Amino acid sequence: MRTLLIVTVIVLIATAATAQSQPQFNLMPIPSTVQPGAGQLPIDQSFSVAMTGFHDASLDSGVRRFQAQISKQTGIPFRPKAGATNATLQIHPDHGSEAVQKLGEDESYELTVSDSGAKVTAPNPLGILHGLETFLQLVQPSANGFVVPAVTIKDQPRFPWRGLMIDVSRHFIPIDVLKRNLDAMAAVKMNVLHWHLSDDQGFRVESKKFPKLTGMGSDGMYYTQDEVREFIAYAHNRGIRVMPEFDIPGHSRSWFLGYPELSSGPGPYTLEGGGIDPIMNPTQESTYKFLEKFIAEMAKLFPDAYFHIGGDEVNGKQWDANPKIQAFIHAHNMKNNQDLQAYFNQRLQKIVAKNHKTMIGWDEILHPDLPKTITVQSWRGQKSLAEAAKQGYSGLLSFGYYLDLMWPASRHYAVDPMSGEAANLTPEEQKRILGGEACQWAEWVTPENIDSHIWPRNAVIAERLWSPQQVTDVDSMYARLNALSLHLEWLGLTHRSARTLMLQRMAGTEDISALRVLADVVEPVKDYNRWDDAKGPIDFHAPLNRMIDAVHPESDVARWFQSLVAKYAQSGYKDQAAETQIRTSLTAWRDNDAKLSPLLGQSFLLQEVAPLSANLSALGGAGLQALDYLDKSQSVPDSWRAQQLAVVEGAKKRQADLLLMVAAPLQQLIEGGANPKP
Amino acid sequence: MRTLLIVTVIVLIATAATAQSQPQFNLMPIPSTVQPGAGQLPIDQSFSVAMTGFHDASLDSGVRRFQAQISKQTGIPFRPKAGATNATLQIHPDHGSEAVQKLGEDESYELTVSDSGAKVTAPNPLGILHGLETFLQLVQPSANGFVVPAVTIKDQPRFPWRGLMIDVSRHFIPIDVLKRNLDAMAAVKMNVLHWHLSDDQGFRVESKKFPKLTGMGSDGMYYTQDEVREFIAYAHNRGIRVMPEFDIPGHSRSWFLGYPELSSGPGPYTLEGGGIDPIMNPTQESTYKFLEKFIAEMAKLFPDAYFHIGGDEVNGKQWDANPKIQAFIHAHNMKNNQDLQAYFNQRLQKIVAKNHKTMIGWDEILHPDLPKTITVQSWRGQKSLAEAAKQGYSGLLSFGYYLDLMWPASRHYAVDPMSGEAANLTPEEQKRILGGEACQWAEWVTPENIDSHIWPRNAVIAERLWSPQQVTDVDSMYARLNALSLHLEWLGLTHRSARTLMLQRMAGTEDISALRVLADVVEPVKDYNRWDDAKGPIDFHAPLNRMIDAVHPESDVARWFQSLVAKYAQSGYKDQAAETQIRTSLTAWRDNDAKLSPLLGQSFLLQEVAPLSANLSALGGAGLQALDYLDKSQSVPDSWRAQQLAVVEGAKKRQADLLLMVAAPLQQLIEGGANPKP
Repeated sequence: MRTLLIVTVIVLIATAATAQSQPQFNLMPIPSTVQPGAGQLPIDQSFSVAMTGFHDASLDSGVRRFQAQISKQTGIPFRPKAGATNATLQIHPDHGSEAVQKLGEDESYELTVSDSGAKVTAPNPLGILHGLETFLQLVQPSANGFVVPAVTIKDQPRFPWRGLMIDVSRHFIPIDVLKRNLDAMAAVKMNVLHWHLSDDQGFRVESKKFPKLTGMGSDGMYYTQDEVREFIAYAHNRGIRVMPEFDIPGHSRSWFLGYPELSSGPGPYTLEGGGIDPIMNPTQESTYKFLEKFIAEMAKLFPDAYFHIGGDEVNGKQWDANPKIQAFIHAHNMKNNQDLQAYFNQRLQKIVAKNHKTMIGWDEILHPDLPKTITVQSWRGQKSLAEAAKQGYSGLLSFGYYLDLMWPASRHYAVDPMSGEAANLTPEEQKRILGGEACQWAEWVTPENIDSHIWPRNAVIAERLWSPQQVTDVDSMYARLNALSLHLEWLGLTHRSARTLMLQRMAGTEDISALRVLADVVEPVKDYNRWDDAKGPIDFHAPLNRMIDAVHPESDVARWFQSLVAKYAQSGYKDQAAETQIRTSLTAWRDNDAKLSPLLGQSFLLQEVAPLSANLSALGGAGLQALDYLDKSQSVPDSWRAQQLAVVEGAKKRQADLLLMVAAPLQQLIEGGANPKP
Repeated sequence: MRTLLIVTVIVLIATAATAQSQPQFNLMPIPSTVQPGAGQLPIDQSFSVAMTGFHDASLDSGVRRFQAQISKQTGIPFRPKAGATNATLQIHPDHGSEAVQKLGEDESYELTVSDSGAKVTAPNPLGILHGLETFLQLVQPSANGFVVPAVTIKDQPRFPWRGLMIDVSRHFIPIDVLKRNLDAMAAVKMNVLHWHLSDDQGFRVESKKFPKLTGMGSDGMYYTQDEVREFIAYAHNRGIRVMPEFDIPGHSRSWFLGYPELSSGPGPYTLEGGGIDPIMNPTQESTYKFLEKFIAEMAKLFPDAYFHIGGDEVNGKQWDANPKIQAFIHAHNMKNNQDLQAYFNQRLQKIVAKNHKTMIGWDEILHPDLPKTITVQSWRGQKSLAEAAKQGYSGLLSFGYYLDLMWPASRHYAVDPMSGEAANLTPEEQKRILGGEACQWAEWVTPENIDSHIWPRNAVIAERLWSPQQVTDVDSMYARLNALSLHLEWLGLTHRSARTLMLQRMAGTEDISALRVLADVVEPVKDYNRWDDAKGPIDFHAPLNRMIDAVHPESDVARWFQSLVAKYAQSGYKDQAAETQIRTSLTAWRDNDAKLSPLLGQSFLLQEVAPLSANLSALGGAGLQALDYLDKSQSVPDSWRAQQLAVVEGAKKRQADLLLMVAAPLQQLIEGGANPKP
């Protein structure tokens, strides 16, 4: 009987997700305007596509991809049909897009679907691609076959820059993994892949001018220039710009293994350790000669108009320790290291501009000495972004969009680039806020689990940057996110499937039902709490095969349980259906430890979660007692209450770098049980 | 409560699988000799590999693949280590393998593992590859880390030819799907991929001499010669030969779209219809001129020593209808069409031999006029194989190994090439039985579900052909097959994951728990019962997205339930634990229809399974009543018994081309309930 109770939670969750505030269309991001029509367009073997207006090889490949995708989603093998004049779906772009995709290009489209046909029109292929993605999200089975509901959609993005940054330095991410993430980005209409290609722990792109950058500055894992070109073409075909970042003058230890002469300190340097102190020497002309050559090479390799030079977290320790550098600061009447970095950035900006690129960097590059043409990416917040805009600088928001901080989707969703101080900007200043970027820093991801760290949460950031500002309903967001998650599986993302394999690896068996019950209600510790400097430097070659590496950043079960307890409390503890569901879950949790314990002892990877499993069991037991008191409308002894709240406090404590996310709603139940409403 | 009962079945199954007759090592195929040792070899970040003796690029790539695989299985990122003299695993092949892998090459190896290190030695790299696969199957988590148990294994195959035939004509299977199947074959030590490249419905390999073969004889989906060469190299690196089959003179309609002059009938021909009547004309010299050129081209493309010319199912209708062909038969003193096919095969054999290849074909090519150098592949049985061997012909068994017939693994497992008439052959004759081949005919598979049709069942055929003849324990087989199935997921096979996606597609939602309960207890109809000719020709472009296309060929749940009922009956209906498990399942089944029905109505793909769902519910109810009678040791009214058996009979009827596999054990329960033991 235990066994059977255990698995229930998953099932109930899924039911709850479909029941709650179902929107009419499972679209993410929500389009600017959606006008439902009457009837449905059948999608069957006769489905065909015709193109009029502009077309080129890139758009053709996009349409073929669309056809393959709709085939996957329906299981219907569509074959190309010649001269389909009565095609089901008409596609018409007025003219072509720019050869190199530009910031601010028109991305609008119109999609009309009736019971007899559909049409996507757009000024250019960028809009067509977005319209096709919207169409794919609308395909669903019905009693009469696969259909797309009749609808008229007019859509365009709120912000022109909707990006995802992926750090490939700390852990190398192979091209094929990045490609499927591009597919997912295209599905949610993101249009910039910001490729963080170098950092202290690894230099990841081939330089033919400076081969020691990867030769000594990586563990052998990097992208060749051919791979980069092919990747950029892949992104271009999906309406996505690829912007490279080479983070300097800080975060550049990997450069110094091959080229120690660039650094401000004595070295020697290794990839494994040395913190973030190593920093480029901006006082010597040889540094600029090197960067002239390097940036010229990379500017050719990456066609995008923007070139990201990083510029963050310069702690200046090596500058302080180097008498020559201090003398230079003094000789040039600089006040401090910030002025020295500004000097470096001014020199850098000229090199970048000479290569016909716009320089972009993190918050710290902002300095009055720099021209207004540069762009600032804010990891510090809307205030810093607003200040830049007031000074005439363009900017992007990344504060609030750090996926590696393990926040729930709702928290990212609540962050708006135009909120806070940005809300008070003049219209002209507001235009300088170009959009934002989600950031996936790679201290704790591998090719195996990166999808689950990015998706599906990244989709809500995509919606924030695309959809109208007033689209903020969290229940609707989660319902649509659930549908999108399934949609992403058809694109080959492993954000759901990876966890199963990783749990099976830990357990050494396919039977992970009890383990899954525990994994379903925990989340990784938040923010930067997984590691602290007292532990020493992170070993970036250590296995990431623990429970924390397998679980999802957000627990759907805990969120569902929390809302169920809230509903039960709001009913004055009288909602019988809610109580039954709560009781079922609590029973499953109470009984899970007995089932899981034998497995935990068998595997070194599971031993650390034993206290979590025991705590979950204790919480289940406490909750059931609370329900019994509530059922009897009986007041409870203070001693019981204190005892149970101590159990909750214990369960809230981090274990194995994980948090038991059902502790908080259990507390509510116990406190409610102690003071039941009449 | 319904919800929770429903899911239980899956969990119980998994538990049962691990509990039953657990073998000491989860190896499949079982090696010839296994000698367990004391202790365990730790697999941690210090794991390293060193090679001595022979090595070449192919073996190096095999060792790199091994390292990547062990990394996947453990989550430990092993980095190449220079000059590892104290390596954890020593690899030593005495000498190289043949440049083109040969039938009968030594594939033996020895693997010794102690608590301090391991060693794989073999005469050549073929054995090394097998030894590394064995090592991978032994890696498991323990309380102290990942380990490999100490063991000494001496192993070699029983048969030199252990193949898998894949038909890529009826449904095209892309190279990447075939590649992961090669990976799986290597994991179970199969060594021949028999590539059925042409048939009535499509010609699948590029001919530069005869471009219309694919240009008109396919739907545009075929392999280029570059792809073929790359695929053969991929197979070679895994110790697998690639043997092409071009099926002639029958099964050749696709040839005639571009080259109608080859055929015996008037045409015109299409890929879509026309049955198996179209056949080559063996009476005209131009046919042989064509085949001379064609075979010369293909013999160069495919380096394997064997060339498969098909030769099966010649119905002779076009020969009968063609007066010129009848005149030819008469003029050459042939008795019948069989003699004409033998004449054709004789001519063909000379062409094949001129290209330094051994001709191989299906049963029907056997004819006294053909030289003893040809090889016969028997789809008719051991008798036919034994007769060939007596006549001096070499042969392979495929009878009993047709994966498309949807048999349970145990049924394939029971088929031995040396049983029946073959058991009475002389030792010399027995040597002519080279092994066997599993066959995956492609009427009903797509790239999406082909993995689940082949795996994991194919592994038991691999074991039959590799392991000693006395390895026949079915319980052990199923336990090890379960472990192997998990192992295959690490290779990227989709034999388990595809079903989930397909069920979600049918349902249009992620919540498929009730649908899964039904899917878990059904199997596709067996043998060729899915289709009969009265329905007309199969539409090979029709969607394969029904329940029958998603479910596994064998129901693990039904097999488990059957054995549970048997155990309960053997106990005289007194085993309380068994009864509890049975009752839980029956309750889940009884209640499942109410949960599933709403979903079934929403999707056209699910409507057809509504009667199955109702029947499952009825069976559950009937079974629970039977248990109640058994509990009370109460004799039951005849009317009840008759009524319940009628329910069982109804549930046994095919619905939606599916069989409800728990009907039979339910019958046992009801009959037991009617006549309980005292």
